[in-house]
Amino acid sequence: MRLARIAHPAGVAFASIEGDEVLEIADHPFGDPNFTGKRWPLADVRLLAPILPTKIIAVGKNYAAHAAEFGSEVPETPLIFMKPNTSVIGPDVPIKLPASSERVDFEGELAVVIGQPVKNVTAARAKAAVLGYTIANDVTARDQQKADVQFTRAKGYDTFCPLGPWIETAVDPSDLELRTEVDGEVKQRARTSDIVHKVNHLIEFVSGIMTLLPGDVILTGTPEGVGPLAEGQKVSVTVEGIGTLTNPVQAG
Amino acid sequence: MRLARIAHPAGVAFASIEGDEVLEIADHPFGDPNFTGKRWPLADVRLLAPILPTKIIAVGKNYAAHAAEFGSEVPETPLIFMKPNTSVIGPDVPIKLPASSERVDFEGELAVVIGQPVKNVTAARAKAAVLGYTIANDVTARDQQKADVQFTRAKGYDTFCPLGPWIETAVDPSDLELRTEVDGEVKQRARTSDIVHKVNHLIEFVSGIMTLLPGDVILTGTPEGVGPLAEGQKVSVTVEGIGTLTNPVQAG
Repeated sequence: MRLARIAHPAGVAFASIEGDEVLEIADHPFGDPNFTGKRWPLADVRLLAPILPTKIIAVGKNYAAHAAEFGSEVPETPLIFMKPNTSVIGPDVPIKLPASSERVDFEGELAVVIGQPVKNVTAARAKAAVLGYTIANDVTARDQQKADVQFTRAKGYDTFCPLGPWIETAVDPSDLELRTEVDGEVKQRARTSDIVHKVNHLIEFVSGIMTLLPGDVILTGTPEGVGPLAEGQKVSVTVEGIGTLTNPVQAG
Repeated sequence: MRLARIAHPAGVAFASIEGDEVLEIADHPFGDPNFTGKRWPLADVRLLAPILPTKIIAVGKNYAAHAAEFGSEVPETPLIFMKPNTSVIGPDVPIKLPASSERVDFEGELAVVIGQPVKNVTAARAKAAVLGYTIANDVTARDQQKADVQFTRAKGYDTFCPLGPWIETAVDPSDLELRTEVDGEVKQRARTSDIVHKVNHLIEFVSGIMTLLPGDVILTGTPEGVGPLAEGQKVSVTVEGIGTLTNPVQAG
């Protein structure tokens, strides 16, 4: 299923996208969603961030070639950090460049959306905890990341976590092409098979620390090729089998 | 006002504590709370964490003597990090020591609870955004904090953010004694006047990055004297004019 959150003429709702139509879901998309019977042409609704997570856990240095571009290696223990949920925006919403930073980078990523509460789940059982997969841009004020050591400020600005355009529940995340383009020029191109700490192991690791709740999002790390964004550009992250997440870039 | 969240025989509610009585609040405690007219003796209810924040922003190295005990200085820019809201527990709920860590420390802290949505607020206007003040224990797996550099794992375990026992709305946070005791022995004793980046400036700084929402919590940093917790101990953090937050310690 392709799960979205939409703004339609009468309000906001979760929905399933089937071809050119969106079918409204009652309440929430977890478990077996109930449909209201309302439907609209996809072209008549606006896609919002497909989920509002209670928390976002991200993983640093999880592709060897990206770790190498910062003169580093993939750590044996996954390097986790958090982004505040106030940083989430949906497709086509502008990323705003804060005046306090001189270099804001894109980081295209595969994102995992959790479907049920889990604590201490094993990698072997982790798949049952997944609602589906979406796309994220882990936007980062690179200068502040370097200055602070802790990533929270650099990665926590409002608009720094584009998510979407929807959640694919059926896709196998193990070997998908991930591509980031700025104004149509390819900047990152890698396969999720190059992820070192795999999705199932990340869920085991994170749920061994903290309870994961329905809607929580794990960003699986970015491949090599990260680079700066400038006012007026458009940045798109495409993951094979999911879709494309595009956001314009504005001064903050 | 002294705002609490309570479990009473009929359910869970926000409440105001007046002397030996708790007065139930309808819905939420923001703005001018509405009272339902129900009241109970304080002894007949259980105090829960006084708020379930959408996010918790914490500040590292914000007392000079604590920064010095780690061979460091207070950074010019506040060093912020996040704790997941799944780490929150209330008074008297056990802190659980994870098997993966060999040293888990207490860190007594003054906590600020936000009362209204704010973005880019100045220090001069920050006070209007505050609902009140409570007490936190920023429990930390010290060995993992050192190993990871990023603080998220070390400070993110379930039960690692005791909050409470209530929110004081009338207290002036600028010069209060803060005291942490383990089994009655004083481990930390300092005054909030030693905080380097003051509450109003922290709100300005954090709200310059991310929107703060009602119920969000800012931990203002811990003073010198941090140390380890062991199974079977009780840890209490007292802030003058607010109260005492006590939690037992258990194996995880």
